Amino acid sequence: MSERAVVLLSGGLDSYTAAAVARRDGVELYALSINYGQRHAQELAAARAVGQSLGVTRHLELDLDLTGIGGSALTSWQIEVPKDQPIDPAMVPITYVPARNTIFLSLAMGWAEVLGAAEIFIGVNALDYSGYPDCRPEFIRAFEQMARLATRAGVAGRALTIRTPLIDLSKAGIIRLGLSLGLDYGLTHSCYDPAPDGGPCGHCDSCRLRAAGFAEAGAVDPLIVA
Amino acid sequence: MSERAVVLLSGGLDSYTAAAVARRDGVELYALSINYGQRHAQELAAARAVGQSLGVTRHLELDLDLTGIGGSALTSWQIEVPKDQPIDPAMVPITYVPARNTIFLSLAMGWAEVLGAAEIFIGVNALDYSGYPDCRPEFIRAFEQMARLATRAGVAGRALTIRTPLIDLSKAGIIRLGLSLGLDYGLTHSCYDPAPDGGPCGHCDSCRLRAAGFAEAGAVDPLIVA
Repeated sequence: MSERAVVLLSGGLDSYTAAAVARRDGVELYALSINYGQRHAQELAAARAVGQSLGVTRHLELDLDLTGIGGSALTSWQIEVPKDQPIDPAMVPITYVPARNTIFLSLAMGWAEVLGAAEIFIGVNALDYSGYPDCRPEFIRAFEQMARLATRAGVAGRALTIRTPLIDLSKAGIIRLGLSLGLDYGLTHSCYDPAPDGGPCGHCDSCRLRAAGFAEAGAVDPLIVA
Repeated sequence: MSERAVVLLSGGLDSYTAAAVARRDGVELYALSINYGQRHAQELAAARAVGQSLGVTRHLELDLDLTGIGGSALTSWQIEVPKDQPIDPAMVPITYVPARNTIFLSLAMGWAEVLGAAEIFIGVNALDYSGYPDCRPEFIRAFEQMARLATRAGVAGRALTIRTPLIDLSKAGIIRLGLSLGLDYGLTHSCYDPAPDGGPCGHCDSCRLRAAGFAEAGAVDPLIVA
């Protein structure tokens, strides 16, 4: 039996690519997606399509409404998603969802313990990361340290590894990697504030990073062509 | 304006006492309760009563169904709650919910960041802790370390402190502390597997630790009298 891993699937390009690396490495995939009240519920439909195409053994969707906590343009309708604004790498943007990756990794850690999985794959990257603090390698290492003390598995000496295969890649590098693995990025969804028909707005930070990544990789985004 | 703190309220005796210490210390209380699919939904009614009696500024209830993850007698109907069994302090019991305190602290951390709160109060204790790994001081310190790297507040140098006023107390010590603060433990709920009328079973680990604590404190449990 191959090793099991929990893969966090958002429906975006990054988590799809990270999960595809897990599949390439021969692990059995258990996909976890969180319906957290994000503006862009299209993400979840994309996550399902991505999970199916990767042949995950199981796909668990958890509802966790973070709009009660708010504090982000992605979880509060009172905060506008910025459009066509300069991206300042020294600033944490308003699309940052407080504690999101910690919350998601904690849920993945709980499921990994139940499954006997020793790895979690997450598609964070520290380069084109939009300034989110919880996408940095030092955060990931601190989470692993905490995980050793948090769970029954940890107490029993079974360390949990957070795999971040994209952490040092540029957006273009991620896209090149995914295309080399045969991925269909037409299944994914990246936009923070999609049009009523579900199409990307083309103006939010996420759309702009994606477009620049495809351009730099010399590839065509199937979402834009379609 | 007084400092704000997020207090995790489960409806049990410990979190009530921890929150009362926060109130005694003059902080403004923001209560957080998680409806995680626990068998004992009476907990949430108790959490509301406790929050009201403490005069919390706001009480946020989040739904997060952990039954999809399972792996615990508290979140899976397929696992029986142990009754009248010896409590082995070297064993993690089946009522352990994988990653629960990490998940709850992560949610509290997100809300604390939005509120500008620098403290979270949690009623963990390492002595009569039923063998849960995520109730130990070394786990709490590791979570704080991780929190420094996880959030916008942490990046800005505003450290988050996890306050655990009960961590070194016995159950009797917690009860003595609470009674000295004038608490009404009749508002609380501790049983893992209550009777259909909501009354405590008297036989699960939680009921037995509570009964032994009241006996050792020389006090009468208002839940049993009533």
